[in-house]
Amino acid sequence: MNRAASAYPAGRASLREVGLRDGLQLVKSWPSTDAKLNWLAGEYAAGVRHFEVGSFLPVSRMPQFADLRDLIDAVSRLEGARSAALALNERGLTEAFDTAVDEVVCVVSATEEHSQANMRRSRTDAVELVRAAARLRDERGHKAIVNAGIAMALGCSIAGAVDPDEVVRLVERCLEAGADVVGIADTVGYAGPRAVSELTARVVRLAAGRPVAVHLHDTRGMGIANAAAALDAGANILDGSLGGLGGCPFAPGATGNVVFEDLVFLCEEKGFATGIDMPKLLAVRKIPESEMPDEPLHGGLARAGLPGRAAA
Amino acid sequence: MNRAASAYPAGRASLREVGLRDGLQLVKSWPSTDAKLNWLAGEYAAGVRHFEVGSFLPVSRMPQFADLRDLIDAVSRLEGARSAALALNERGLTEAFDTAVDEVVCVVSATEEHSQANMRRSRTDAVELVRAAARLRDERGHKAIVNAGIAMALGCSIAGAVDPDEVVRLVERCLEAGADVVGIADTVGYAGPRAVSELTARVVRLAAGRPVAVHLHDTRGMGIANAAAALDAGANILDGSLGGLGGCPFAPGATGNVVFEDLVFLCEEKGFATGIDMPKLLAVRKIPESEMPDEPLHGGLARAGLPGRAAA
Repeated sequence: MNRAASAYPAGRASLREVGLRDGLQLVKSWPSTDAKLNWLAGEYAAGVRHFEVGSFLPVSRMPQFADLRDLIDAVSRLEGARSAALALNERGLTEAFDTAVDEVVCVVSATEEHSQANMRRSRTDAVELVRAAARLRDERGHKAIVNAGIAMALGCSIAGAVDPDEVVRLVERCLEAGADVVGIADTVGYAGPRAVSELTARVVRLAAGRPVAVHLHDTRGMGIANAAAALDAGANILDGSLGGLGGCPFAPGATGNVVFEDLVFLCEEKGFATGIDMPKLLAVRKIPESEMPDEPLHGGLARAGLPGRAAA
Repeated sequence: MNRAASAYPAGRASLREVGLRDGLQLVKSWPSTDAKLNWLAGEYAAGVRHFEVGSFLPVSRMPQFADLRDLIDAVSRLEGARSAALALNERGLTEAFDTAVDEVVCVVSATEEHSQANMRRSRTDAVELVRAAARLRDERGHKAIVNAGIAMALGCSIAGAVDPDEVVRLVERCLEAGADVVGIADTVGYAGPRAVSELTARVVRLAAGRPVAVHLHDTRGMGIANAAAALDAGANILDGSLGGLGGCPFAPGATGNVVFEDLVFLCEEKGFATGIDMPKLLAVRKIPESEMPDEPLHGGLARAGLPGRAAA
């Protein structure tokens, strides 16, 4: 049994709230640290347990993540909650293992073009960072899980179509490099459910029991359908963000991540218990609403409420 | 082989544009007849072949459908195109069979509560209207297909949860009464993909080769995921409306029908050829945009365009 199995038990879907990372990636203003802590606490009270809370990047470049350590500390105090953060280079890794972070996320681009344009490094170097993460973690005796996510795995805004065989080879290399969790990301929302289903099933087979994460964007309205396909194909972890916050600099017009609230509804309806209370979750939207008034929030459940009998 | 089989060939998905009917059901202003004819012509040029164009109701009650006969005539002149219209009582049926309409749609509510509130008649009387439609059609030697749709089949805004066994029994009675096509409608957008999948599969088995239509609303953001589930479960016909126009008086906050454009993208991605050209289809949105400026149009494809390589 690998170290990630207890974090993401097999046979159920774990939902990761990435709003505090991916949702803040591109915004011009962001919540105060207090507001972020309230966001975390509110979602925790609603039953959310998996939080991606930022990237280990220079504060000068990404000031929205300046309080990353405070958020990791806050999550570490919550029984059963888990924090994840991105580390995109050796310095980020070193910083990450100085915190109580539960999961370090490394990103490997599916295409050489995007890897060079976005990260200014080759895919091979990116895979080597996964290896460095696992090695450093072991040297330090740190508890963290290493998650390797393949960006642009279902289509690339620079290179266009992406060969699934290529993604599968990269996943294989990440597993060989020591990734505890592997993920595929439809970073620019190009996919439909057929592509998601086929790729997820291949990655699940390859991962051979290690948890598989699927990160989807709702750019073309396919987000929830793609999430349903990923669940059916055996994904263990699905990412979403409150109100569908977030986007990608390489996806003009993108409406952001899959809406977390709608993802909860989907999972419950499909028989994957989430343990999340919808009214409590919906109430947390008031935080980004007041802290980031320029960012539109999306969501079917927020708009229409849970299905029910009409009031008399 | 039943008379509907040539209209909706087995083994492929037929997409029905219901914007000119369901999309105009609740609006305060609607396109001029010329604009509606341009809407039809534009979608036909894009490859759309199935159009629901109105309801046979008194003009005093539903003035937006006053030009229904003009639209039916227009569709009848287009090679391979098919018109459908609702008939909700005997007078509607009589009027329908005085036109060249290709399909008469009768509605049966899944729940007695909704049947009485919405149609002021029992479900048994509604099934008898299906029988009357088939009989009158045969007496007149009219070509039209009779379509019986079960409204609120996946949840009722008045009665709440709906027993699928009850829906299956109603479908059975409609088939026995002579329906050529049977449909299930998630009128208020209560369903998720599991419920859609299970009910569609049961109705497909019961229909034994007669086409099965699934009519979905995107009220809670599940529309496209539900459409994917319906396709996988063997539905032959999926309804949608341009820009997701339309709603239901019994679904407060409803955002309308599944977005037709996104439905096309979904079907193509899943390997169901639609024969519809996306750029031409998207161009038709300018008609409701200019004719009904107060009605918001939705859609992922309209927002983000087809996936592709970034411009250099």
